[in-house]
Amino acid sequence: MSRTFNTIGLIGKYQDPGIADTLQAVHNYLRGRKLQVLLDADTAANMPGHGMATAPRAEIGERCDLAIVVGGDGTLLDAARSLSDYGIPLVGVNLGRLGFLADVSPADMVQQLDEILAGDSTEEERLLLHARVERDGEQIMAADALNDVVIHKWEVARMIEFETYVDGLFVHTSRSDGMIVSTPTGSTAYALSGGGPILHPSLDALVLVPICPHTLTSRPIVVSAGARIEVVVAPSLQGQGQVTCDGQINHRVEPGDRIVIEAKPRKLHLLHPRGYEYFRILRSKLRWSEQP
Amino acid sequence: MSRTFNTIGLIGKYQDPGIADTLQAVHNYLRGRKLQVLLDADTAANMPGHGMATAPRAEIGERCDLAIVVGGDGTLLDAARSLSDYGIPLVGVNLGRLGFLADVSPADMVQQLDEILAGDSTEEERLLLHARVERDGEQIMAADALNDVVIHKWEVARMIEFETYVDGLFVHTSRSDGMIVSTPTGSTAYALSGGGPILHPSLDALVLVPICPHTLTSRPIVVSAGARIEVVVAPSLQGQGQVTCDGQINHRVEPGDRIVIEAKPRKLHLLHPRGYEYFRILRSKLRWSEQP
Amino acid sequence: MSRTFNTIGLIGKYQDPGIADTLQAVHNYLRGRKLQVLLDADTAANMPGHGMATAPRAEIGERCDLAIVVGGDGTLLDAARSLSDYGIPLVGVNLGRLGFLADVSPADMVQQLDEILAGDSTEEERLLLHARVERDGEQIMAADALNDVVIHKWEVARMIEFETYVDGLFVHTSRSDGMIVSTPTGSTAYALSGGGPILHPSLDALVLVPICPHTLTSRPIVVSAGARIEVVVAPSLQGQGQVTCDGQINHRVEPGDRIVIEAKPRKLHLLHPRGYEYFRILRSKLRWSEQP
Amino acid sequence: MSRTFNTIGLIGKYQDPGIADTLQAVHNYLRGRKLQVLLDADTAANMPGHGMATAPRAEIGERCDLAIVVGGDGTLLDAARSLSDYGIPLVGVNLGRLGFLADVSPADMVQQLDEILAGDSTEEERLLLHARVERDGEQIMAADALNDVVIHKWEVARMIEFETYVDGLFVHTSRSDGMIVSTPTGSTAYALSGGGPILHPSLDALVLVPICPHTLTSRPIVVSAGARIEVVVAPSLQGQGQVTCDGQINHRVEPGDRIVIEAKPRKLHLLHPRGYEYFRILRSKLRWSEQP
Repeated sequence: MSRTFNTIGLIGKYQDPGIADTLQAVHNYLRGRKLQVLLDADTAANMPGHGMATAPRAEIGERCDLAIVVGGDGTLLDAARSLSDYGIPLVGVNLGRLGFLADVSPADMVQQLDEILAGDSTEEERLLLHARVERDGEQIMAADALNDVVIHKWEVARMIEFETYVDGLFVHTSRSDGMIVSTPTGSTAYALSGGGPILHPSLDALVLVPICPHTLTSRPIVVSAGARIEVVVAPSLQGQGQVTCDGQINHRVEPGDRIVIEAKPRKLHLLHPRGYEYFRILRSKLRWSEQP
Repeated sequence: MSRTFNTIGLIGKYQDPGIADTLQAVHNYLRGRKLQVLLDADTAANMPGHGMATAPRAEIGERCDLAIVVGGDGTLLDAARSLSDYGIPLVGVNLGRLGFLADVSPADMVQQLDEILAGDSTEEERLLLHARVERDGEQIMAADALNDVVIHKWEVARMIEFETYVDGLFVHTSRSDGMIVSTPTGSTAYALSGGGPILHPSLDALVLVPICPHTLTSRPIVVSAGARIEVVVAPSLQGQGQVTCDGQINHRVEPGDRIVIEAKPRKLHLLHPRGYEYFRILRSKLRWSEQP
Repeated sequence: MSRTFNTIGLIGKYQDPGIADTLQAVHNYLRGRKLQVLLDADTAANMPGHGMATAPRAEIGERCDLAIVVGGDGTLLDAARSLSDYGIPLVGVNLGRLGFLADVSPADMVQQLDEILAGDSTEEERLLLHARVERDGEQIMAADALNDVVIHKWEVARMIEFETYVDGLFVHTSRSDGMIVSTPTGSTAYALSGGGPILHPSLDALVLVPICPHTLTSRPIVVSAGARIEVVVAPSLQGQGQVTCDGQINHRVEPGDRIVIEAKPRKLHLLHPRGYEYFRILRSKLRWSEQP
Repeated sequence: MSRTFNTIGLIGKYQDPGIADTLQAVHNYLRGRKLQVLLDADTAANMPGHGMATAPRAEIGERCDLAIVVGGDGTLLDAARSLSDYGIPLVGVNLGRLGFLADVSPADMVQQLDEILAGDSTEEERLLLHARVERDGEQIMAADALNDVVIHKWEVARMIEFETYVDGLFVHTSRSDGMIVSTPTGSTAYALSGGGPILHPSLDALVLVPICPHTLTSRPIVVSAGARIEVVVAPSLQGQGQVTCDGQINHRVEPGDRIVIEAKPRKLHLLHPRGYEYFRILRSKLRWSEQP
């Protein structure tokens, strides 16, 4: 797909003044190419005297042809969720260590952005999740996630109990610390800590990873991305559970609540520098093949 | 899809005379419905005096509209591989414990076959794998698998060493007891023992499960069924490895050999009795949700 | 060791009126044998009109030669902690499913108690833990545990960060959901859900089991019961953690807090009915060897 | 314990001419200190013109006060087994990467050997195993192991079946690829690849780690080093199994064979350079605490 880039959104790490220099450098670079730039209003609040045109997140979604996200994977998760309904592609400039998602390095930024703006990039589609919580038949919460939706214990003694359904079919009753419903993107994040497999980002699939399950026979299950996942908190649960999206959005759930999780029809478009290879990032992040 | 059943193939468990009565009962039932029946020639060799028309496996593939397999999952794996190029559907009559694949029970056989022959069944498509071994540029072995293709050590001290490629891209170097390349069907077999996830049978995906990897950072990876998996045995390996399909077909591999594994374009068609639910079979086989 | 039983303590499941009949039956049985019986005062509060002599927990510890605990493993954990400094042996009457700890069955109760009181029983010693939390050099909490001491996240985004020391030697920095420090008794409880090994109860050892560790190279470590385990919550942690003993006693911990865990010098004495075998209980609880 | 070192044995990596220079340097260093040196006869066979006094392994065990092993962990395993009945301490000079066992580095060799010979070292005792195979009541094989004794499949279709007993008590029936019986030393070797826990070397304990068990409820079990482990190969097994000690000694086993594994009464004495810390080696080998 050939893309035209006229207006570029700029989003920075949440409440981190240390990114101002990089944001300014990206801004200058883009203006030097005669492109219009809109700085995310929340980011701008931490950069007094930035001198850039600003816009709220929704306006960035509507007006921009590309959003450049400066920070790390956490910042990109946040940007992806907020822009998920607009369809604009994202590229991440990584200020920390090599990221799974944000992979433009500040050192090579000018060259890599040159290539990306010239269309010389690798474009990837990533699944997004939509989660909603229903109580007594009414929706009380809804949120998106790029990595995962986690149902877990919260202020309960030792475990949470819930039933899982896939496309209306009963899967199992779980007594555990919780369950992670993860996209391929999230499969290298919390789901991996919980013992889940890695899902290649090109897969249209989700994985359900139990967290410290009470029964030894519980195992991660990979299902089609078209599946509707439902988790019903046991009515007998004493205490509360919690639903968390991308580790960033939290909502309490109570006995009897129903959490419905589905892939969003629209995927996230991620642009990577030329030469991007998923397995290479896996190797460097997971230290595969290294001789210990 | 509406199917018409005129000629039915009958395949029995390998070298097990104990299945003769059930085969005879299925034969009589089918003849009672005025259907033509062909008994698999290998099966017939263990049933002196059977009095049925027989045919070699290939002829069953060509002439039959359905193959009824009497035995267990192992028998169905064998039948599936041998009939994979003919496209005829299979149904399994299980003489052992409940099978993942063979799920018509002898007790309910007449009623369940009545329903299946009337088109009142659940039809499932299952991925099949094709594996071939190349040595010095020449193909020296080729075989199919419904469950898995396993590369493992054989007469080597403690581990095998190999490189894995997906679609020509380097994934990693592994020093381990081996690796399982599994279909969704095989994900509840050997791959599960190796720590792999369960893949729902509707998924177009394969999972690569390392066996006792030397590095702790190795994890199962799920890739698209369209991926071409290549495993190159390290030229420096001392001793031999082995490739095994479905635990039933074995072939030695040597240093430098290349094993290429791809999904077959044609899938296996499995017919299940009415009311078949994959998760229910998972629960009863894995004892999910049971209070210990 | 030959024991003499004159005074018997009776402890029932917390706030469960359903155990009154069994407690009454045990009481009548003991009185019929001319033994003195003291009902735990907390238990008595839920049994109006019980007509038994009562005593607070500490007095049971001081005056009794044996405590009979009626309930399940949870009740026995609580009794064990409260009596840990008195050295009296415990026997558990299990009202639920077969327990790991409470293994006198109500059906065989009279015969099994006859044997136990006659000295015809299997006596086991079980390690107990003592945990204390230090803040700014002062001890702010102390508690015992028969199963485990768990340090885990609490109202923090996604993980907790801490350092572990064994006998003053640095072990590692962990970013995770937490860590379980478990006795052999606890190794079949929460630690097993977290992926820990089973420790035979005769072992003088503890196991440290990471919960959802951020790094794939983290593994459970078994150390000597003589080791002093120290966990220091990272000063930079945002939010709070929690320390939990046996899943029943909770205390918040803050950045910089130090949790010190050591085995208690005195062990718990558990009496089992004749014929007790640890591996048999493992088999029936974990369903080993069962053909799925 | 104060040790006097007069006669030193020298053992080199098996059939590796590349170690001749290091051996010569160690020899010259020791002779410079007026110590008597005996070169292992097998090692000498690969070093024509070495000009050293040589002795077979048994004589080294009888006459030497210390054996210096030049190679890696594999060489040290071999030396430890062959010298296990003589009680002389070992020190390892590591020519490869940092070893778990061989931890004198060639670069610091002179200084570290100075300290060790002056008694300024850390001495550790390590458990050794003795395994024997009984067939029809007769012992047909016996061998020692410092890391592990492994019972595994060999020329059998997919799994081996066996029963395990501890101190004569039935533990479970296993259908699997095999089982690893590991010392604390071996817990960071093959047992770790199989999913076992790490056992601190000071523990008097063994761990039984199932390899790819057929049942999901199988877990590693840690038992006392005083336990007698017996593994009985199922009489119904088709094909053969194999017993392997330290990955270096192999022996076929057949249906009905009984493998008996016990800790040896005498432990291995390992000398480490000053400042040796087990957890530090764990960290550097397993890359704990590293930020990926």
